[in-house]
Amino acid sequence: MASFTFRRQLTVEWGQCDPAGIVFNSRFFEMFDTSTWMLFEAALGVRPEDLGRRFGIVGIALVDARANFLKPAKFGDRIEIASRVSEFRRSSFDVEHKITLDGELAVEGGESRVWTVRDKDDPQKIGAAAIPPEVIAKFG
Amino acid sequence: MASFTFRRQLTVEWGQCDPAGIVFNSRFFEMFDTSTWMLFEAALGVRPEDLGRRFGIVGIALVDARANFLKPAKFGDRIEIASRVSEFRRSSFDVEHKITLDGELAVEGGESRVWTVRDKDDPQKIGAAAIPPEVIAKFG
Amino acid sequence: MASFTFRRQLTVEWGQCDPAGIVFNSRFFEMFDTSTWMLFEAALGVRPEDLGRRFGIVGIALVDARANFLKPAKFGDRIEIASRVSEFRRSSFDVEHKITLDGELAVEGGESRVWTVRDKDDPQKIGAAAIPPEVIAKFG
Amino acid sequence: MASFTFRRQLTVEWGQCDPAGIVFNSRFFEMFDTSTWMLFEAALGVRPEDLGRRFGIVGIALVDARANFLKPAKFGDRIEIASRVSEFRRSSFDVEHKITLDGELAVEGGESRVWTVRDKDDPQKIGAAAIPPEVIAKFG
Repeated sequence: MASFTFRRQLTVEWGQCDPAGIVFNSRFFEMFDTSTWMLFEAALGVRPEDLGRRFGIVGIALVDARANFLKPAKFGDRIEIASRVSEFRRSSFDVEHKITLDGELAVEGGESRVWTVRDKDDPQKIGAAAIPPEVIAKFG
Repeated sequence: MASFTFRRQLTVEWGQCDPAGIVFNSRFFEMFDTSTWMLFEAALGVRPEDLGRRFGIVGIALVDARANFLKPAKFGDRIEIASRVSEFRRSSFDVEHKITLDGELAVEGGESRVWTVRDKDDPQKIGAAAIPPEVIAKFG
Repeated sequence: MASFTFRRQLTVEWGQCDPAGIVFNSRFFEMFDTSTWMLFEAALGVRPEDLGRRFGIVGIALVDARANFLKPAKFGDRIEIASRVSEFRRSSFDVEHKITLDGELAVEGGESRVWTVRDKDDPQKIGAAAIPPEVIAKFG
Repeated sequence: MASFTFRRQLTVEWGQCDPAGIVFNSRFFEMFDTSTWMLFEAALGVRPEDLGRRFGIVGIALVDARANFLKPAKFGDRIEIASRVSEFRRSSFDVEHKITLDGELAVEGGESRVWTVRDKDDPQKIGAAAIPPEVIAKFG
């Protein structure tokens, strides 16, 4: 089933590229993180910096990240990142990021994140909480 | 005299901020570098990755960078960067970057760059060359 | 069978941490990349910048990267990264990175890389080549 | 008069370099920041993450940073950073960073920082406070 997808276009920056002239891998993980925040803002209508307060959470902690690099992106290349939640579980979810260049898939990325709250009895501790159904509903 | 100014808007990203919750200083220098490329693209109509070939240069080497941090920018803040060449000399020039937040000056930055070419006799060596008058003219 | 392992210790830097006060995920991928170069230097006795020339390759191109974040690392934390090639295939290999903090596994990372050469007929093209047996032997 | 100097050696990493094969400017500002924390740890015997608690400060906020790039540093280059406080004022101070490569000055950097505290009446506000004489004394 089609789920809510957030897309943005970027131009590859000089400082994102390595001596081979292509985007250094860690930069894609920065892009994924930012796209996930933007995906949530687009789906929920809540600005990233207000997400915690709005839902009583500490954050959407990243527990796993991965990327498959299929085609290099060079300085000046116009790329598009399409991001969507591919699966919601009780208290965690997966985000899928597809970066395309000239219409071809260049990077396939994924993140697993946890809906994270402070422990009621011990605020020093954090843990997973059930994702509210109204949040999940917004991602269609 | 007013010179050509390039402006862009950015939203501060999570990964650009430090444990104090504000943009880490090195990130502003990344923004300056990218804005300088974009300023040249806007003024000359040449894409950054074509600048070298178009003008027979190796690049616009950075020899000096500086920033004055007046007001912190936090995650989610919408900032604007206005960049312009404040002075052209024979073979070098200065770029001035002003970052504003809610209409107030947040960061004042500057770069000095050199119009860099390969030595005709020894291509291993690079050096400064005179900036073409038609380049300077485009910055008005 | 035990394979050659390269270990290094790092202290988490302020600029590597995010507003939650913990290492931002992309920074771990930077650490992995550097550890892979250092692992190759330690195993082969060839400095990273000489690897291409010594073996007639363009590089050891990253085609896949992944990390599992088990325990956050904070500003000032002393961490250890242990890296080893977990599998050599004909023209590609996997590197496994384990980051520990106070003796506990904090991040489990992995990279898949390709032994990359220039095409003899078309130097614009790059492709995979067989990894020399003497290289593999050095990783025991 | 000679003041306490902190030195460390680094090997330039692949991910710190740009398509010109040299360290991208923002990376030097990351190095400066970390060296300042290490300089304070070496001079005061207080770990960076404990500095705030130990002296009742919020931090040593950066208000100005600058660098002069004299000689490029390439992937694999062994560089040394020597850092010292060049001047203490009532509530602010300057740090000077000199990066050398093969015994030659490659980058000359500087930071201005403020001894920052929370306002007693309004903890939302921060301001400058006098640097304790015993702190200054430790830098000789």
